[in-house]
Amino acid sequence: MDKVFLYNDNIGFCGILDHMGDDLAIVNSARVSFNTTHEALTDRDIKLIKYLYANKHTSPFEHCTIKFECNVPLFVARQHMRHRTWSYNEVSRRYTEVDLEFYTTKEFRPQAKSNRQASVHDDILINPVLTTVVGDTQDWTTRADEAILLHTQNSVKLYESLLDKGVCREQARMVLPQNMYCRYIATANLHNILKFISLRDKPGAQWEMRKLAQYMGEVVSELFPHTWEAYTLTTTI
Amino acid sequence: MDKVFLYNDNIGFCGILDHMGDDLAIVNSARVSFNTTHEALTDRDIKLIKYLYANKHTSPFEHCTIKFECNVPLFVARQHMRHRTWSYNEVSRRYTEVDLEFYTTKEFRPQAKSNRQASVHDDILINPVLTTVVGDTQDWTTRADEAILLHTQNSVKLYESLLDKGVCREQARMVLPQNMYCRYIATANLHNILKFISLRDKPGAQWEMRKLAQYMGEVVSELFPHTWEAYTLTTTI
Amino acid sequence: MDKVFLYNDNIGFCGILDHMGDDLAIVNSARVSFNTTHEALTDRDIKLIKYLYANKHTSPFEHCTIKFECNVPLFVARQHMRHRTWSYNEVSRRYTEVDLEFYTTKEFRPQAKSNRQASVHDDILINPVLTTVVGDTQDWTTRADEAILLHTQNSVKLYESLLDKGVCREQARMVLPQNMYCRYIATANLHNILKFISLRDKPGAQWEMRKLAQYMGEVVSELFPHTWEAYTLTTTI
Amino acid sequence: MDKVFLYNDNIGFCGILDHMGDDLAIVNSARVSFNTTHEALTDRDIKLIKYLYANKHTSPFEHCTIKFECNVPLFVARQHMRHRTWSYNEVSRRYTEVDLEFYTTKEFRPQAKSNRQASVHDDILINPVLTTVVGDTQDWTTRADEAILLHTQNSVKLYESLLDKGVCREQARMVLPQNMYCRYIATANLHNILKFISLRDKPGAQWEMRKLAQYMGEVVSELFPHTWEAYTLTTTI
Repeated sequence: MDKVFLYNDNIGFCGILDHMGDDLAIVNSARVSFNTTHEALTDRDIKLIKYLYANKHTSPFEHCTIKFECNVPLFVARQHMRHRTWSYNEVSRRYTEVDLEFYTTKEFRPQAKSNRQASVHDDILINPVLTTVVGDTQDWTTRADEAILLHTQNSVKLYESLLDKGVCREQARMVLPQNMYCRYIATANLHNILKFISLRDKPGAQWEMRKLAQYMGEVVSELFPHTWEAYTLTTTI
Repeated sequence: MDKVFLYNDNIGFCGILDHMGDDLAIVNSARVSFNTTHEALTDRDIKLIKYLYANKHTSPFEHCTIKFECNVPLFVARQHMRHRTWSYNEVSRRYTEVDLEFYTTKEFRPQAKSNRQASVHDDILINPVLTTVVGDTQDWTTRADEAILLHTQNSVKLYESLLDKGVCREQARMVLPQNMYCRYIATANLHNILKFISLRDKPGAQWEMRKLAQYMGEVVSELFPHTWEAYTLTTTI
Repeated sequence: MDKVFLYNDNIGFCGILDHMGDDLAIVNSARVSFNTTHEALTDRDIKLIKYLYANKHTSPFEHCTIKFECNVPLFVARQHMRHRTWSYNEVSRRYTEVDLEFYTTKEFRPQAKSNRQASVHDDILINPVLTTVVGDTQDWTTRADEAILLHTQNSVKLYESLLDKGVCREQARMVLPQNMYCRYIATANLHNILKFISLRDKPGAQWEMRKLAQYMGEVVSELFPHTWEAYTLTTTI
Repeated sequence: MDKVFLYNDNIGFCGILDHMGDDLAIVNSARVSFNTTHEALTDRDIKLIKYLYANKHTSPFEHCTIKFECNVPLFVARQHMRHRTWSYNEVSRRYTEVDLEFYTTKEFRPQAKSNRQASVHDDILINPVLTTVVGDTQDWTTRADEAILLHTQNSVKLYESLLDKGVCREQARMVLPQNMYCRYIATANLHNILKFISLRDKPGAQWEMRKLAQYMGEVVSELFPHTWEAYTLTTTI
């Protein structure tokens, strides 16, 4: 498992760069309380992992870390970076104007009626026809995805015009829309990664966000299979 | 001191909502180490505050907190929220589409040559004339501020067209540019507020960011005058 | 509510020094998401508090803080200070040798058989008779509480002998037993205070620790009654 | 480098259990800002590490972690665990009574006159003769180290008497002195490890604490040699 594309646009991705620890390391960190160490996982150890997770003895999971590389739209990155237990390093648009990329989709979700915040999470996906969306005097129709694409291109043109005239990058970037991709490195310990997944891969979370959290869940299930099982047992209860 | 506008647009502001503690509380927190308490600040107490700050005995400053309300452009809010020791609550564009506001300016800074990240921080402010910036087939000229305003209006039109056709807010917001204002509540303890100011009000930091940090410095200087003096003594050294 | 003694010895106490916020402030912090503010708590606001707490929307509770003063035995202070979201300032035994106090009790709990970590939490309290406990060559009997008292006095005598001979406090303190009282100031935001209480006032937690957590619960229930109700509803489910 | 004894008693030790990252990883985390990656360290990369550290661009150092095992006296462990950016797992004296060990020394430092907190950090080491230190009615003389040893033994005897009579471990441990060894696992990211070292290996810090911080510095200098050089350049300025 190296890196997966999260959406249908071959741009948004997440991958694992490095990690520290495994299920055995968690057990041995926990067994410090008993002053013993194991060389290999036993059945009792696997039970111990489940017991620890179910009973919120979270500290043994903090000695394992995973380092990810993410490339996600700004509105997803913003939600990720609200988690204050992670470390982040991000491509700065104050530094560079190269490699500007933008998220686009043909699949739009209807607004949920009951939950003001959410979208409807079933198969009703729409790509409506819009009229008079871009420009001042024009009046033509286009699909939503094309309208967004055109809007994005106009944003980049304006951005580049500003740079051409000598305006600093840190100001010019204000015209770039929030479907702009952000590339960054994100590291956290296993306890906080699981907490992140539990909050960001659940009904009510934005679909684009859930895709990132789900990928991280797959990484955890490969690197820490018994911890992942303990997590799924606890969160489905 | 209640609330000040940060820029020239009568939109961006910061204000203080609440706070806990004063210089005397800091001294008494520190004097717990000596097992004594004072009723009023003495000259020795003021010296103690300076000694504590200069010698990185930061814990006594952590028992004081300030709660701010901020309304700043997204690119400023993003920098603020990278500070993981603060607590934030933000108007969610997944919830509401009302009160959309955008940052505009007539004063653009040139790109710095020496520092790839920064702008030139002197009086050379420009508002260049751009050509062919918005729309597909047009070819006209306009000042940068007007071009940005027009771009912003087009973004909102597209956003509203998407909502009109039933697209969920959480997706539609992707077309909104990063000069969109974010309103949020932000709370931190005094130690972390001073750390924030030291990192965000210095040469190399973005001007729009520095305005926020400078206002917070004014709040600290009123509520905790001796701590503020200790801070300025240490950071100018 | 100012300060209560936690045990039967008129030494261990906890009190509130300061606080910021109330239930209304929590609601208004949360309503920033909706871009509205209330002047007084409505029934819907009270429901909102319960909804927020039950659904782990914890950030609105982070803008409220409480500042406590604690005086508890070292083995309790150690558990408290493992909570890394609090701020602490403590009487340092490297600074001062005055006001040494020690925890004593006549009520000892039997070791639990099923849970290796816990004691039996019912009314079986013992104060057993011990033989040959202190000194080298003696052979006499005494109640546990008296034996501990004598041991504590011997510890202090040894500590003072070391100081008298010029040994530094930071080394001499190593002979002081863990029933030594620690006085400190502790501040946290409401979210983390409730998390602390949920982990430290539950079956399996040490009785002396629970007393501290229970007092903090009383403080919360006075200052933030609706939040406290939301907390008790969620934790008893 | 596996594990070193910190003091002269062949008990207190620190060792490295695992780590993630190297100097190259730091550079590549930083270069995300520029959107580039290197395969091997160049001279410019080494300069970049120094620039990052000197200018407090600390986030690239947060993606590296080191996991230590420590066995230090309680009064040292207590200072270590005040650092809230680390993760800890500790042998609990509520769980087990085996392997009780205690710190002893023949080398006592005089109390500093000028700094109430510190000891004199030169070669004047003393092991004074004490009188009437242990027990109630006795009157004999002994060296400080022997007095402490005897005191420790008496503490353990009392502890075991309490356990023998059925008193729970969580209460009985209150009689154990603070030279009791604590064994624990401690993990932090490189940025916070360096911050720890800068605060705990400096004049004024307790010698027993500095030994731990110095060992950690040696680990950093082997695993991250250029970062260590950047650190030493910055802290000696």
